[in-house]
Amino acid sequence: MNRIGACGVAVVGCGTVGGATALLLSRDRDLIAEKTGVSLSLKYIVDRDFARARSLKLDPALFETNYDKALADPEIDVVIELVGGTTIAREIIERALKGGKHVVTANKALLAHHGPELMKIAHDNGVSLSFEASCAGGIPVVRALYDGLVANRIDAMYGIVNGTCNYILTEMIQKGQGYAEALAGAQRSGLAEADPRLDVSGLDSAHKLTILASLGFGRRVELEKIPVEGIDTLELIDVKFGQELGYIVKLLAIAQRLDGGLSLRVRPSFISREHPLAWVSGPFNAVSIYGHAVGHTMYYGRGAGGSPTASAILSDLLSIAQGTAPLLFRSLPIWPDRAPEAAQLPSERIASRYYLRVMVEDQPGVFAQLATILGNHSISISSVLQKELGANAAEGVPVVITTHTAIEGNLLSALREIDSLDAVKRKSVCIGIIDEHEETIAL
Amino acid sequence: MNRIGACGVAVVGCGTVGGATALLLSRDRDLIAEKTGVSLSLKYIVDRDFARARSLKLDPALFETNYDKALADPEIDVVIELVGGTTIAREIIERALKGGKHVVTANKALLAHHGPELMKIAHDNGVSLSFEASCAGGIPVVRALYDGLVANRIDAMYGIVNGTCNYILTEMIQKGQGYAEALAGAQRSGLAEADPRLDVSGLDSAHKLTILASLGFGRRVELEKIPVEGIDTLELIDVKFGQELGYIVKLLAIAQRLDGGLSLRVRPSFISREHPLAWVSGPFNAVSIYGHAVGHTMYYGRGAGGSPTASAILSDLLSIAQGTAPLLFRSLPIWPDRAPEAAQLPSERIASRYYLRVMVEDQPGVFAQLATILGNHSISISSVLQKELGANAAEGVPVVITTHTAIEGNLLSALREIDSLDAVKRKSVCIGIIDEHEETIAL
Repeated sequence: MNRIGACGVAVVGCGTVGGATALLLSRDRDLIAEKTGVSLSLKYIVDRDFARARSLKLDPALFETNYDKALADPEIDVVIELVGGTTIAREIIERALKGGKHVVTANKALLAHHGPELMKIAHDNGVSLSFEASCAGGIPVVRALYDGLVANRIDAMYGIVNGTCNYILTEMIQKGQGYAEALAGAQRSGLAEADPRLDVSGLDSAHKLTILASLGFGRRVELEKIPVEGIDTLELIDVKFGQELGYIVKLLAIAQRLDGGLSLRVRPSFISREHPLAWVSGPFNAVSIYGHAVGHTMYYGRGAGGSPTASAILSDLLSIAQGTAPLLFRSLPIWPDRAPEAAQLPSERIASRYYLRVMVEDQPGVFAQLATILGNHSISISSVLQKELGANAAEGVPVVITTHTAIEGNLLSALREIDSLDAVKRKSVCIGIIDEHEETIAL
Repeated sequence: MNRIGACGVAVVGCGTVGGATALLLSRDRDLIAEKTGVSLSLKYIVDRDFARARSLKLDPALFETNYDKALADPEIDVVIELVGGTTIAREIIERALKGGKHVVTANKALLAHHGPELMKIAHDNGVSLSFEASCAGGIPVVRALYDGLVANRIDAMYGIVNGTCNYILTEMIQKGQGYAEALAGAQRSGLAEADPRLDVSGLDSAHKLTILASLGFGRRVELEKIPVEGIDTLELIDVKFGQELGYIVKLLAIAQRLDGGLSLRVRPSFISREHPLAWVSGPFNAVSIYGHAVGHTMYYGRGAGGSPTASAILSDLLSIAQGTAPLLFRSLPIWPDRAPEAAQLPSERIASRYYLRVMVEDQPGVFAQLATILGNHSISISSVLQKELGANAAEGVPVVITTHTAIEGNLLSALREIDSLDAVKRKSVCIGIIDEHEETIAL
């Protein structure tokens, strides 16, 4: 900071989030100064196109098409990177850090791919790289991990961290819409992109899981080793069968500390209607974090949108201006660049309960075959749901089975065997059932 | 701190929370050092009785009956006050602060009564007074207000901040138990004190509301001006009628920014089954916070118990050792001793929807009388529920009315008139219905 309490800021990228950030920086200066004693001074709004900036009536004197100028300006203390992607954004962040400027970013893809290298550059240059807005938008969950829950060994995290997917699933659950119909509705409401693949494939959730797990477990996490399944292949029939069994389907980013390593995965999962995450509906996000001392905590709010995300960006900016972010960034050894590598377990090693839907020819003896195969693989059946569904006999009739806790590798072997039976008409569906994580607190 | 990264600590008061804090400080030294680089050194466990300390196998070499010794020891950087109450605790904190020691406390009663004076003493002596554990136990909600949501103007807070009350209400809701039966069960489970008055009267919630509102709104708040109603007069019949109407009853600590001031109150309230607070069950706590930029966020977890509360205490302790707490304590002007006084509005000024239960003689024309009185006071009826309940005719039959938004002062006038009718058999019941707070975010 140039003067005590004054902080020169450049916002690079003026889309939804950048526009909201610039607007709050302009409009709420007095509120922020009153609350924190910090005087924030927005000096550049960098973009190629200022349509959004103009529609928000931002000061045209701040518009700048060349980010070099902001990076070279000694009055800029903090660069807020909101370009997105992993190319130009990366260059901007690296150059800002090397130029001795603190950086705030919401860029989960970049951090998931290159977090450790960027953290190292920041450390080497004596500045900080803050990223509260990269996970779950406005919810201060990154801070919970490095500050509020810092005395805890984190045992598990279960996150609903993609609002688009949660909105689509909520529509499927509450209105009985199929995936395609719910997606189209989300696109009409502006809650899904025209090309929704990053969201619905689960990849965006995996980016966030990489960041949260790195922080929570203090280990380097490899995005590429996270098995990812999206909601784009989810069928309404399974959503409904799940409801009948007392479960709500959510796209969960899951991180569990197990014997021998971490299990990280993103996939549609069933959770009990009693679990707080089951009630997170529409575009809202929430992250359940289980600490060894605190037990179960959960953080809920809007995971996207301009103004909620800007709230997180400004909290980072203010922590830099107040001096706490640089202090923690220097002292905390949990940032990825200094952390040992995590042992990421393959999903075959997970023990869980499962929901299976097998489409079979309606003939005698088929269920006995399924039960025998499951038994041979040490999988014990908890419940069976078989309904007379007259229609579509070509697809077979659904046999829904829930299992007791089983090893996923065993289950997948059994399913391969089941799917090769003559009486089985198509690939079976398998969805993990997430039980309430056991709290370890003893006192 | 004496050396960089080393921090001498005295735990004063070794009950449930003090014992858990001392245990985590002893047992988790390496975990904490690995996560934060801070070496915590527990030097004193001060109490008159060490039964609990011994049962936790804490090191008897640390036991000390005289707190003067800890306060006089230059190796003590931080005093953790867990004595409770407003007499000895106050003396210990004041002396520690004046002796240049940072203080961490979980003492909501003391802060609610004397927060501003204590903050001033801390400021005057260049040390910090931290109190994350004073509100909602292990949930990092105090931090959310001064850090994660710092860029927001806080518009409203709705908190379930007393686990004993929430446990009792959950039993009433889920098992249909009456208040006395549910309280007895809570006492048997160790979730309610033998003398439960502080909890069930709502006073403990009011202490926490005083602290949260001071922080959230940056104003001095007077505990004495907060209208407080507990759960001890709540009747099962109203819990059940509420459920029938789609509402769940919760003891809410409510803080709303209104035109002309703040409305702060603690009372049993109905919330829609769709609101996230509705599914906070058993001894768990949660606080919904609405910020002008972030919209609705919620923080959930255990609000009491040794180890969850110790998690919050240690987060404060580590912030002191890392230097961030003193930095923020110096710079943030939102602490009560520097804040202007809040305009606390009387509850007569609130606009809300209400649930009324009037016990009437089952005779023609009574309902018309009620409707006329309500109409005369500008209160419009939203729904009516009248059931044929044969029994107890001496008490009358219940007429349940929900209103559209009305001014509480008008409603209370109407109720006084209603209760003076010959056909009305006893004092009517009135419970506020809390609608989803409107988010102000526009972007």
